[in-house]
Parts: sequence; C-alpha cells; structure tokens
Amino acid sequence: MSQDQRAAARSMMTKRDPDRTPAQERADFDAIFADRPLGDDVTLTPRTLGGRPALDVQVKGADGDAVILYLHGGGYVVGSARTGANLAAPLARRTGLPAVSLEYRLAPEHPFPAAVDDALAAYKELLGSGRPIVLVGDSAGGGAALATLIAARREGLPLPVAAVFFSPWVDLTLSGESMDARGDLDPLFSRAHMAAYAEHYLAGHDPRDELASPLLADLTGLPPLLIQVGSAEVLLDDSLRLAVRAAQHDVDVSLDVVAGAPHVYPLMAGVMDEADEALDRTAHFLTLRLTVGGVA
Amino acid sequence: MSQDQRAAARSMMTKRDPDRTPAQERADFDAIFADRPLGDDVTLTPRTLGGRPALDVQVKGADGDAVILYLHGGGYVVGSARTGANLAAPLARRTGLPAVSLEYRLAPEHPFPAAVDDALAAYKELLGSGRPIVLVGDSAGGGAALATLIAARREGLPLPVAAVFFSPWVDLTLSGESMDARGDLDPLFSRAHMAAYAEHYLAGHDPRDELASPLLADLTGLPPLLIQVGSAEVLLDDSLRLAVRAAQHDVDVSLDVVAGAPHVYPLMAGVMDEADEALDRTAHFLTLRLTVGGVA
Repeated sequence: MSQDQRAAARSMMTKRDPDRTPAQERADFDAIFADRPLGDDVTLTPRTLGGRPALDVQVKGADGDAVILYLHGGGYVVGSARTGANLAAPLARRTGLPAVSLEYRLAPEHPFPAAVDDALAAYKELLGSGRPIVLVGDSAGGGAALATLIAARREGLPLPVAAVFFSPWVDLTLSGESMDARGDLDPLFSRAHMAAYAEHYLAGHDPRDELASPLLADLTGLPPLLIQVGSAEVLLDDSLRLAVRAAQHDVDVSLDVVAGAPHVYPLMAGVMDEADEALDRTAHFLTLRLTVGGVA
Repeated sequence: MSQDQRAAARSMMTKRDPDRTPAQERADFDAIFADRPLGDDVTLTPRTLGGRPALDVQVKGADGDAVILYLHGGGYVVGSARTGANLAAPLARRTGLPAVSLEYRLAPEHPFPAAVDDALAAYKELLGSGRPIVLVGDSAGGGAALATLIAARREGLPLPVAAVFFSPWVDLTLSGESMDARGDLDPLFSRAHMAAYAEHYLAGHDPRDELASPLLADLTGLPPLLIQVGSAEVLLDDSLRLAVRAAQHDVDVSLDVVAGAPHVYPLMAGVMDEADEALDRTAHFLTLRLTVGGVA
C-alpha cells in the first residue's frame, strides 16, 4: 500500500517546461502551494525579520521557548513565506514550537547572495532574542539554510541547536550522479530545470562559491543535521553527499531516504504515510536536540 | 557534556596487537563482553536454531508476535550468542519483542561462508514459525546480516520486515577511505586489525564475493534498513557507502552518524547518551516498520 502511495504521489506530478518564465513559474507554484489549508489551529501573522517580510507561524499551544526558522523551497526563484508555512506549521504543531517563515529575496531580480544575506540577517535578529533556534529548509531553502550555517560560522556567531533539510539543493554545479541518473524517475525536475534555476540565481557567479553550493564547504563544527530525501529525485545525490561529507567532517548527521518518494515528500503528509512519519521523526529529532542541549 | 562522553568512551578503549591469536582475542573479548549484566528482567535460554546453538533472549513482558534475529560482532573470529545478547536484550526490552542471538561458526576454524550459511539456516528456521522477523547485527554480524539478506533474496525467500546494522563491516576488500583516514581516531581498530580478521575469515577466498563483502551486491528489493555508526571508526565508510548504495538501489534506508563515537557505540548505553538514543531510535524504527507492515 505504501509503495502504491509513493507511485501515486509521483503520478500526480508533472514536469513543467523548464523554459517557463519566473512569473509563470511563480503563478504555477502559488496555485498549488500558496493556499493550502494549514489547519484551524494555525495563525499566520505578518512581521519583519532581518529587514524582510516574514510570517509568524503560530500553532495553538505551541509556545515552546525555542523557535524554528523556516526557509522555503522553490529554486531560489519561486515560493514565499506562505508556501514555507506548509511545512513550518506541521513542524510547529509536532514540536510545540513557534516558527517563522522567511520571505527571502528571489532571483532573477535578486540573484546570489541575496537569499543567503536575507537568511543570515533573519538568523541574527532571532539570535538577538536569546531563544534557542533550529533552522529548517526544503530544496533551495535547504541550500540556503546550509549556506546560512556556513556564513554564521564564518562570522563567529553561535550556531543553531540543529538543522533539518528536506531534499536540499546544495550543489549548484549540478555534479551529482542522480542529476541525470534519476531524470526519468523524478516526476518534477530534470537537469534542465535545475540548470534554469541555477542560471537565474547565480547570474554569472561561480557555482563553486561555497555559499552557493554549500556542499563544497568545510562542514566542521556544524550542529546536528537531519536530511530527508526521496530516491525519485534528481537531487538525491545532494542529500547523500551532504550526509557523507558531514560524517567525514565529524558532524552528527542523520539521513532518511524513502525509496520512490518524490522531492520534498514530507509535503504529502496526510496522503503518504512516509510523509507523516518523516515529520514525526523530524519533530522528535528537534525535540531531542533541544532537550539534550538543555535549552528546551 | 555529550562530547565529553564520546571522548571518554574513546579513551577507555585501547587498540590491541593485531597479531594476537584467535584464542587470545576471544579471551580478551569475552572478558569484556561475555558477563555483562543484562538486567533482572532478562532470561537467556539455550536452544538450537538452524542447527547451531543460540540463546533465546526473553525480556519480561516482551511477548510481541515478531522476533529479532541477532547476529553478534567480532570480526567473524570472536564473540558468541552471549555477547550478542548485550544488544539483543536492550532491543528486546525497547521493542517488546523476543530475540534470538545466534552462535554462528567462527573463523579461522570455520571460514567463509560458514557464518552466512549458519545465519541463513537460522533465518529459514525462524521463517518456518510464520512470525515476522527483523534482522539485526553489529560489526561482522552486520555484514553477516546483510549477506543473509542477499542470500535469502537469491533463494527467493520472504525477506525480513526490516534490518538494522550497528557499525556493519560489509567490505572485506577494506577499500573504504576511512580504513586509513580514521586509523588514528579509532580507539579499537586499524586496517591491520581488519586485515587480520579478513584473512582468518576468507582463508584465501575472494573478498569480492558478494556474500563476503555484501556492500558490493545489488541491494535492490531489500527491506527498510537502519544503519548506525560513529565517526571515530575505520569502518565509518562501510556504513556511509552502504547507505548511499541502498538509496541508489531504491531501498528505504536511514543512517545515523554520531560524531566522535566509537565502534558499535550503542553498547555504551547507560554511559553515553547517544547510545541510549540510538537504541530508542532503533526500537522506534523496528516498531514502526512492523506496524506499517501490518504484522505486529
């Protein structure tokens, strides 16, 4: 049954023309993700964070001391604080923590390193509150989250207690074997899609910059990481290589691969058992890290 | 504090002379592991399984329908059903399942493929009971467990519901980068130790045989796998490569790497927080797999 769910999840998705304009991409993305019901227990409150718009994602009763900083996905080109709330809200519910979903600037209007600059500024403002922080991102938001850790370490800032990455895009050189090997299996993306996103975001900048491709950075000293990915993804190898590199750099790291699952499969919570499992597991990971750290 | 625990765990261990005889190795190993207290709620009952001695590991109240088949570690040269009970018992307690710890034949008296033959025979006898089975092994026992999955698939047998590997040794060609790169950090083993164990076990057989080095096998069709490893291990890369390969072969796989932790760190439960966490996580993984499979 679960294998059927994974296949059904894949079949519900279709690859789009990789040459669609950013405006068309945003309209398509928002049509799917910008109005998803979050539950009657969720309140979204506009705010600013690090000089950018953001949404406080408050689930009733989720009043823990720590805070989730959420960075949405969308190839650095599409998505918003609101689309990020689709995962921030269930995580807030499961962890009992408030979340903030950031509206970082998007390419091509605001190319690299705008997204990372915004995420770092948001992180700094949250640091000022003195609350323990966990950093979570999906897809390009996962890449931005990892880049934010690298940038924060570079500045000597305290790091988050933990970080979670759903199908992170951490290699804009597109050198992962799965970029081609999984092209037929991935219901959403091919190399052409990722290349188009990378072109918008990099605007000529070197993809090997470690804040653009944080997989290439020295990961030493990062906090515990959790990575969740499906095997039906051109981005599979980004996650596998991130886990391997983190381990080799003596970082606590956990990896969950769900065979046949599509990109950012935790979004399928309520439809695919593994998605609910993944969110439960993520919440458990975060709660444990906050507890062990003695901060929640 | 936890970092201190990991360092303390490492400092309590010392590398032995890799040229010690099997008899000396067994005496050393048993002195540490053969009399460890298991808890007043544990009963060990000798039995046979697949024609080999084994121990029923029964924790009071752990009367679930499924059964854990446990394969102990020890380089295919040392260890016993009793030493396997050191991890089988806490897993039985945490899962509420009975366990059986197998006394497979050891090298050099019984070289490859004796251990795998014994494990497969034990698995077949358990299959005959009709109970759902989960397969768990540490170190060489993890390698034997993976080889057993490959052998069972080859024979067209039903596979276990899930399998768990603590610091598995799955590459007897010793080709992992960590085999040298982690030699100084690993408090227990160096390449020389692993080469000595491999020589005893292989007795001239090709290490590339997929039942000796099951990392090299096609993993397609295997049940969900959980792998736990420390980063202070020459065997780190065996786990990393197993996770990567399983993912690439569309197998559900989870990997937990604890930075700075030594070989089979779940044995440090009660002393190192991460060890207790690892066993909790393993029990949760197994319980979930048994529940989702609709068999427990």
